[in-house]
Amino acid sequence: MPKISQKGQLMPQSPIRKLVPFAEKAYQQGKTVYHLNIGQPDIKTPQVALDAVKVHSLDILAYTRSEGSEGYRNKIADYYSKNDIHVKHDDIIVTTGGSEALLFAFGSIMDVDDEVIIPEPFYANYNGFSTASGVTVVPVISKIEDNFALPAIEEFEKLITPKTKAILICNPGNPTGYLYSKEEIKKLADIVKKHDLFLIADEVYREFAYDGAKHYSILQENGLDDYAIVIDSVSKRYSMCGARIGCLVSKNKEVIATALKFAQARLSPPTLAQIASEAALSTPQSYFDDVIEEYVERRNVLIEELNKIEGVQVANPKGAFYCIAQLPVKNSDKFAQWLLESFDVDGETVMVAPAAGFYSTPGVGLNQIRIAYVLNTESLKKAVNIIKQALKVYKD
Amino acid sequence: MPKISQKGQLMPQSPIRKLVPFAEKAYQQGKTVYHLNIGQPDIKTPQVALDAVKVHSLDILAYTRSEGSEGYRNKIADYYSKNDIHVKHDDIIVTTGGSEALLFAFGSIMDVDDEVIIPEPFYANYNGFSTASGVTVVPVISKIEDNFALPAIEEFEKLITPKTKAILICNPGNPTGYLYSKEEIKKLADIVKKHDLFLIADEVYREFAYDGAKHYSILQENGLDDYAIVIDSVSKRYSMCGARIGCLVSKNKEVIATALKFAQARLSPPTLAQIASEAALSTPQSYFDDVIEEYVERRNVLIEELNKIEGVQVANPKGAFYCIAQLPVKNSDKFAQWLLESFDVDGETVMVAPAAGFYSTPGVGLNQIRIAYVLNTESLKKAVNIIKQALKVYKD
Repeated sequence: MPKISQKGQLMPQSPIRKLVPFAEKAYQQGKTVYHLNIGQPDIKTPQVALDAVKVHSLDILAYTRSEGSEGYRNKIADYYSKNDIHVKHDDIIVTTGGSEALLFAFGSIMDVDDEVIIPEPFYANYNGFSTASGVTVVPVISKIEDNFALPAIEEFEKLITPKTKAILICNPGNPTGYLYSKEEIKKLADIVKKHDLFLIADEVYREFAYDGAKHYSILQENGLDDYAIVIDSVSKRYSMCGARIGCLVSKNKEVIATALKFAQARLSPPTLAQIASEAALSTPQSYFDDVIEEYVERRNVLIEELNKIEGVQVANPKGAFYCIAQLPVKNSDKFAQWLLESFDVDGETVMVAPAAGFYSTPGVGLNQIRIAYVLNTESLKKAVNIIKQALKVYKD
Repeated sequence: MPKISQKGQLMPQSPIRKLVPFAEKAYQQGKTVYHLNIGQPDIKTPQVALDAVKVHSLDILAYTRSEGSEGYRNKIADYYSKNDIHVKHDDIIVTTGGSEALLFAFGSIMDVDDEVIIPEPFYANYNGFSTASGVTVVPVISKIEDNFALPAIEEFEKLITPKTKAILICNPGNPTGYLYSKEEIKKLADIVKKHDLFLIADEVYREFAYDGAKHYSILQENGLDDYAIVIDSVSKRYSMCGARIGCLVSKNKEVIATALKFAQARLSPPTLAQIASEAALSTPQSYFDDVIEEYVERRNVLIEELNKIEGVQVANPKGAFYCIAQLPVKNSDKFAQWLLESFDVDGETVMVAPAAGFYSTPGVGLNQIRIAYVLNTESLKKAVNIIKQALKVYKD
């Protein structure tokens, strides 16, 4: 029998999805499960996007251009312009989700065994894409005590080797909810220019900045045109994760020309989803105002309720819709599994993502979980209460 | 300025797409261009698929399961069963087009510098996916004089090294139109079992078998369960290339478990397209009967007209909707470019795919082109006439 690859063996299991079989067991036991494990918001997709595919006039569901249609890319450029980010349609390649934009970026700038420095904890699938690309993640630890702020510049510089090709940040951060300040972005700009590295910023949560804070994109930073690669997606912005439409944005022409070759190999991003995504660009501002208000309320409830639990430490997120909570348990992986298998409050339990999968340093984050606050405040209160009751009886 | 990767530099340009800028020039000159370069059929998508997305009742365009919904996979298994291929839903992972299924297969079974043997000429993007995966394509030449039949087994065995992990075929073949016989599949089965290799078959053109010939899937071959990986797609079957829905099928549980990790890293295949693709499974047989009849007619016209041109040699395709034609030119790349830039018959010209990009052996296929017969017979006649007139005056 032929063997699978080493790469395949090394591919990590997604911490967001790995407990799915246990959730299914919980369903079979008749339990209700509150899903705090995955960033699938319960927010409605803008009607304009849902309607656009209902009135399509296609006879043939054909390929689009590999980089996305010029019309759609022009509209994306307009969207950026409204966000004080000045790019043209040919700085943009439409991708199958932010996921594919990351794969194209990794492939375009890194070879096997090259290194990318990422502040951890980081979006777990960065591990998967790195393994798939044969690239090594070099983590720089950010701490819950510091609210997961950018580690000191010296910490980055210590890690730079001849194999380092890029620094990757997620801003606002999944799983930390941390929003980098303009000053922090400027610090990163200085390092990448000094050491001739790319700066990749996953900005898919751009709109989700709270408490009056404003997102500062790496594409707004002067002098960074050759260095900056932005990963973007419609998934969270318009609560249309299932569209699988994102884009890669860079003013570095060589990066775009190279990413285009990867794009051409896979022919085209999904056509129906591009129709929905183009329409989504007409979503009125009131939609976002309502959504942000809702998330702020959820965050406030979540953090308040978590802080009431003895032994729980939590960073206060300023963006996105995740937080990392440190629990008084030894192994949050086992705890999360136990919640699904063996615990309930009145037939209800909760699914969380063990945080160790968001770190690449072994042994770090073992007592942490990531919570996605993608449920309404009432459900969140119930879910946190389940965690509270569970911690009273759980032994590890 | 930071540099792009070696991999990025090595990524081939798609021969199907590389002439697009010259086509755009031709449009600007006011020319009509017959597109024989890309396998984008002009056949209508089944109405049932187009309608399904028009009546969707989604409030939230959410992720699906990473492997595709169980319901859809059960229906895919039913489709296979009707084709005498007996698999279960958990032998199937729904992917973003056949392209992603190939990437998952390559990643799951091959490491950097591993080798995959592919009869050439082959689907050009196999080169792109190999480069992206760091894998080496080892070509075994099939010849136009033999109608591109399977090369002798000895030719394969000569090429097997400790790094060989798989043999990849496309059946029926893009770009050759060759349909492998049951006997040829059995020969391949013998080699992979003897040498402990995977056999990957890209069967996206399964339905397109002509002249009473019947497609024989590697999944129908006994004793091949541990070895066989099928790449499939709805793109050609239902003329819905823009859906970007395919699947990877294998009875090897380790392959499926590994491919699932790649699938989970990218979260979900496109949701709207899955709705259309699930509906497409209800397409009546009459649709396929009509389509096959149409393609046979087109093929007959195309081959007949090409054979009338002096100095042109063409293999007679038994499946898919491509053929390789050998032209009396030295460099078909230049010829194809010249057709767009400098030639027309009454304001009309033609875009073909230079065949060199379908070979990985340097210098082979330089005088060949791939023609996709995705236009109606009248257009095909006009297009072939343009090639005929062009060859009379072209000097290389």
